[in-house]
Amino acid sequence: MDWLAGLDAYFAAMIRCIGFDADDTLWHNESIFARAQERYRQLLARHHPPAEVDRALFATEMRNLPLYGYGVKGFLLSSIETAIDLTGGKISAAEIREIIATGHEMLAHPVDLLPDVAATLPTLSRDYRLLLITKGDLQHQERKIAASGLGAHFHAVEILSEKDGATYERILQRHGLSPAEFAMVGNSLKSDILPVLALGGAGVHVPYHITWQHEHVEAAPDDQPRFRRIERFAELPAALTGL
Amino acid sequence: MDWLAGLDAYFAAMIRCIGFDADDTLWHNESIFARAQERYRQLLARHHPPAEVDRALFATEMRNLPLYGYGVKGFLLSSIETAIDLTGGKISAAEIREIIATGHEMLAHPVDLLPDVAATLPTLSRDYRLLLITKGDLQHQERKIAASGLGAHFHAVEILSEKDGATYERILQRHGLSPAEFAMVGNSLKSDILPVLALGGAGVHVPYHITWQHEHVEAAPDDQPRFRRIERFAELPAALTGL
Repeated sequence: MDWLAGLDAYFAAMIRCIGFDADDTLWHNESIFARAQERYRQLLARHHPPAEVDRALFATEMRNLPLYGYGVKGFLLSSIETAIDLTGGKISAAEIREIIATGHEMLAHPVDLLPDVAATLPTLSRDYRLLLITKGDLQHQERKIAASGLGAHFHAVEILSEKDGATYERILQRHGLSPAEFAMVGNSLKSDILPVLALGGAGVHVPYHITWQHEHVEAAPDDQPRFRRIERFAELPAALTGL
Repeated sequence: MDWLAGLDAYFAAMIRCIGFDADDTLWHNESIFARAQERYRQLLARHHPPAEVDRALFATEMRNLPLYGYGVKGFLLSSIETAIDLTGGKISAAEIREIIATGHEMLAHPVDLLPDVAATLPTLSRDYRLLLITKGDLQHQERKIAASGLGAHFHAVEILSEKDGATYERILQRHGLSPAEFAMVGNSLKSDILPVLALGGAGVHVPYHITWQHEHVEAAPDDQPRFRRIERFAELPAALTGL
């Protein structure tokens, strides 16, 4: 009977569904924020050194996060607030207009897919049920999904205000999945990988070259059997076998 | 066989599920925006008469709606942009700070339930499956639902970027409902009632004393057999029988 129990465990652990993060996993995002923040540093350069601007902006963003949530609109409001603080109220209306204009460019920015994404998703959708699981601004995320042209590969799209154990549990339940059948793919260890591993799911980390300070995690869970790290999206089908 | 067909039609049309709008249906919302807009008019009073301020702000909001979507953060960003325009750049940083401070008060405002809501929902949840269907800012709507204490009465919460025929259709499908089995309750004819009636569902309009200009609709669908209007939330259980 031992081999039957083994077979049972084998099938029970087979991945049926893959969740994908969107920003910096399927398409570029943090690079757009990085360019906006560089313009912001230049705008305030005559008042403060860049490191001080970064520190103050991040502190404002973290203070406002419970009120604003994630996304460009909250980033803009925190940028305006920080600029007023850092200049002692001397920032001009024209400069604030420039911050808002940068924000409009961010919101209207074309969706640039990451390499191999467009070719890999159709292959995976033949063998797995695919979910898009992203956090941030509802309107902006929906527009990016539409603009990406990837929507048809996904069984469902879940846009969350936060990605943690409770929200992943709710999504698994809604889709009738056990953690054993689920793998999450994303660039953030903190939001995409660690909460899913903690539930008993699998996680595939695809690092992006920039990580927002808020998503930073010291150590990768390299000792976890259901964790993989890949360098390129094209390695994903192979990484999923055996998870 | 005629009476059997009649019985069939009778049961097919029985409401099984009620969707509720949230802002200005379950709790006060537009009154919070109205107070913020009054402060905004005063802030700009030395530059422009109130009607001109209102007109300019609404025009900015409508222009930015495809980028920002609904909610307080977009309202704030449009308010700042309009204030810069209307003052020819002469608005001070301190005044922009005041606009942001008003926004923080709006986002942190306690949830004030409308009369009879707290007593009526538990009764309805015994006979119907209840859904909360709201549009706007994900983070803010979730915090208001949590603060309302009403969450437990709802089978599911759906936060949308827009409420139209396509989004209602998706929700009915997700919950395995036919339009005949569904009634939507809300204060906005445009967002809550007309798209649901067009699908073949039922609609109960509970007017709020203020309607945002964007939600304004000229004529109520009084000739539609599956439409009701009530003055108080307590009239809802009676209004639903026969729909």
